[in-house]
Amino acid sequence: MVSSPRIVPDSSAPLRLAIAGLGTVGAGTIRLLQEHGEQITARCGRPVEIAAVCARDRTRDRGCDLSGIPWFDDPVTMAREASVDVVVELIGGTDGPARDTVEVALAAGRSVVTANKALVALHGLDLAHAAEQAGVHLAYEAAVAGGIPIIKALREGLAANGVRRVFGVLNGTCNYILTTMQETGRGFDDVLSEAQRLGYAESDPSFDVDGIDTAHKLAILTSVAFGRPVDFSAVSIEGIRRIDAMDIAFADQLGYRIKLLGIAEETEHGVMQRVHPCLVPKDGAIASVDGVYNGVVIECDHAGRSMLEGRGAGAGPTASAVVADIMDLAAGRAAPTFGVPIKRLTHSPSAPIETLVGACYVRLMVVDKPGVFAEIAAALRDAQVSMESILQRGHDPGETVPVVMTLHATVEAAAMRALARIGSIDAVVEPPCLIRIEDV
Amino acid sequence: MVSSPRIVPDSSAPLRLAIAGLGTVGAGTIRLLQEHGEQITARCGRPVEIAAVCARDRTRDRGCDLSGIPWFDDPVTMAREASVDVVVELIGGTDGPARDTVEVALAAGRSVVTANKALVALHGLDLAHAAEQAGVHLAYEAAVAGGIPIIKALREGLAANGVRRVFGVLNGTCNYILTTMQETGRGFDDVLSEAQRLGYAESDPSFDVDGIDTAHKLAILTSVAFGRPVDFSAVSIEGIRRIDAMDIAFADQLGYRIKLLGIAEETEHGVMQRVHPCLVPKDGAIASVDGVYNGVVIECDHAGRSMLEGRGAGAGPTASAVVADIMDLAAGRAAPTFGVPIKRLTHSPSAPIETLVGACYVRLMVVDKPGVFAEIAAALRDAQVSMESILQRGHDPGETVPVVMTLHATVEAAAMRALARIGSIDAVVEPPCLIRIEDV
Repeated sequence: MVSSPRIVPDSSAPLRLAIAGLGTVGAGTIRLLQEHGEQITARCGRPVEIAAVCARDRTRDRGCDLSGIPWFDDPVTMAREASVDVVVELIGGTDGPARDTVEVALAAGRSVVTANKALVALHGLDLAHAAEQAGVHLAYEAAVAGGIPIIKALREGLAANGVRRVFGVLNGTCNYILTTMQETGRGFDDVLSEAQRLGYAESDPSFDVDGIDTAHKLAILTSVAFGRPVDFSAVSIEGIRRIDAMDIAFADQLGYRIKLLGIAEETEHGVMQRVHPCLVPKDGAIASVDGVYNGVVIECDHAGRSMLEGRGAGAGPTASAVVADIMDLAAGRAAPTFGVPIKRLTHSPSAPIETLVGACYVRLMVVDKPGVFAEIAAALRDAQVSMESILQRGHDPGETVPVVMTLHATVEAAAMRALARIGSIDAVVEPPCLIRIEDV
Repeated sequence: MVSSPRIVPDSSAPLRLAIAGLGTVGAGTIRLLQEHGEQITARCGRPVEIAAVCARDRTRDRGCDLSGIPWFDDPVTMAREASVDVVVELIGGTDGPARDTVEVALAAGRSVVTANKALVALHGLDLAHAAEQAGVHLAYEAAVAGGIPIIKALREGLAANGVRRVFGVLNGTCNYILTTMQETGRGFDDVLSEAQRLGYAESDPSFDVDGIDTAHKLAILTSVAFGRPVDFSAVSIEGIRRIDAMDIAFADQLGYRIKLLGIAEETEHGVMQRVHPCLVPKDGAIASVDGVYNGVVIECDHAGRSMLEGRGAGAGPTASAVVADIMDLAAGRAAPTFGVPIKRLTHSPSAPIETLVGACYVRLMVVDKPGVFAEIAAALRDAQVSMESILQRGHDPGETVPVVMTLHATVEAAAMRALARIGSIDAVVEPPCLIRIEDV
């Protein structure tokens, strides 16, 4: 049984917050709380009060009024000592002060609201244990898909359903890069540099472009959707660095867009979690999630298919989600961390990516000479992989030209065997580029 | 202050339900509760038990197991006498037994879950009063947009925001008819007859095609989004009967689709609620909400723009929403009826449709002869309405031909004056057909 919540909804005493981290999201959260204080009080049945804040630099102008709010220099000290009901962790980072702050807050019997996807994806189960033991709550709506209330939709709005599949565009940086490549025909490196100049990508972009951020979010969605312990290590991850402008153009000709998707689905081998670029039908809903928007599709047994789309990041959308969690705590509406008490999480098996069955797009860079197609076809036949189409783009004897194939639904392991052999053909001068085709 | 909820979340006693109405949705609700009983218990922290049912015909096979469940012949008696915590009203209808059942249940101190949009749109404020006085809850997620958790998204997920506009495709019957007209080029009457044969439209279709059902849902959305008393009488309503196959074709040529939208927005004159057919950009998200799907867009100050799309009706999606409400009650998570206690609802003014400012598409049926354009142009000039384009489709002297105009953003009242005069021109042989252009 869930232990009795410490926060009683009919109390008229303010809910007291300590906010750790006053960067973009922290300042946005304070502005939102101050701007809509009256509405928040009306909707929660009690006021929400910022009773402590913590950041390194006291002098910076953050565009919000911090006057009269007790200031701490150390978030862990604040989490331990401030007289508050809830600690809001907006520091970021998987370990270090963010994790320490959350652990100390929970141990001290304070609920925690965080926007920290890495922390929840990697240490979520331990933190949920700590919250349960202390009889408090850990909430993280802001960790996934910013302004879209996707955690609440899975945990409450669609909670009566069995989920079959949940997938989506979860990283605005990758989606901005792929959308811009699509719209301009420019290459990955060029568009990434521009995104860095515009502040849409970090100076070290690997968290985003290598798919890790998407995988953090997917691991969290999977836990809530399927009622399983969050398990980042079970996510197969591939980023978008090797997507060439050519692939975007060929995909377009074939009727597809390229999106980085996080996908979790029930298979006969267990729940499979994977992050990789996908060809998705141009006229489908997920193809139209463009730029910095996020979109999540939920397929379930009774409600059918739903899609939620909105801004995935930024001060406003993230603050909206942080404050929604705070309001649930204030109103006494908070749920168990992953939707059910820990002992009710199911330990069903995870399916490895090798068991995936699906269609693929493959691009080869091939020296244009007779006999190469025959070698490729033999490799596919021997691996029992069925080709749907093959097309050499351009004809220039002796030069390197792209060859694009689409493969019928095939087991991942077989496709990998065929591609390994194709990659070893002399005339194939680059490792084959495989992108999965998802019928979404 | 909200009175203390009667249902305590840490209780392990079952939440006891009485279900009134065993039609498609009632039977679907029972099937869902029975199929996912274990998951529902895990997520609520307590079991949900069907402790009474009521319908007229005891003998019908409803595809669900009713054995051992106490049966009532009269829903009002059940609402008064059954030993239950929650009455689920799935009878339907604005007055009569549905309303009586809900009133008696609330008066007897039982919470109510309903899928009845007409009841909530017309009597929601009185019922919310009754619920507050009894210290119980009235929940109606299933009343709007079926499987999409839109009430929860507005009331909780985006609750920290100020909403600027909320709009959407809210009626599957109209959307099916318009989508089919678009795809096949067929006329309204023809497609309506087919929809009736297929069971997508009622034998008396006026509730759907005249926009009333959409207006019920919009009135509810408006109340939750803007924190105002639900006010169906303030909704300006126009249906889709006069949309001609020609209009769909002309709209397509101009880059638009035609959708029946419900729109609520803040204007300088107050909150305006309107239901009418709209030209929407083909490549926008709302244009791609096709067939029996519903889609709702929320524009708010911090989270920006979000869209939720999913199945709007049917046993599964509606049951999903009904059971989500039941689970919130079981878990002690229920909120005030319209998001805030009644005394915190704001009584801001409602803006009449005459103050609407927007662009329009206008189709005239005109006898093809010299001088007609000049008369039309003069009427527009005198009403100070600015034309963007005018195009006569076809040239056939002496015969009736369509003339299509688009008007720049103009005050509704001025457009109406201009159209009244244009309609009185001899050569204009039918009342002008005006369809608003929405930049959504």
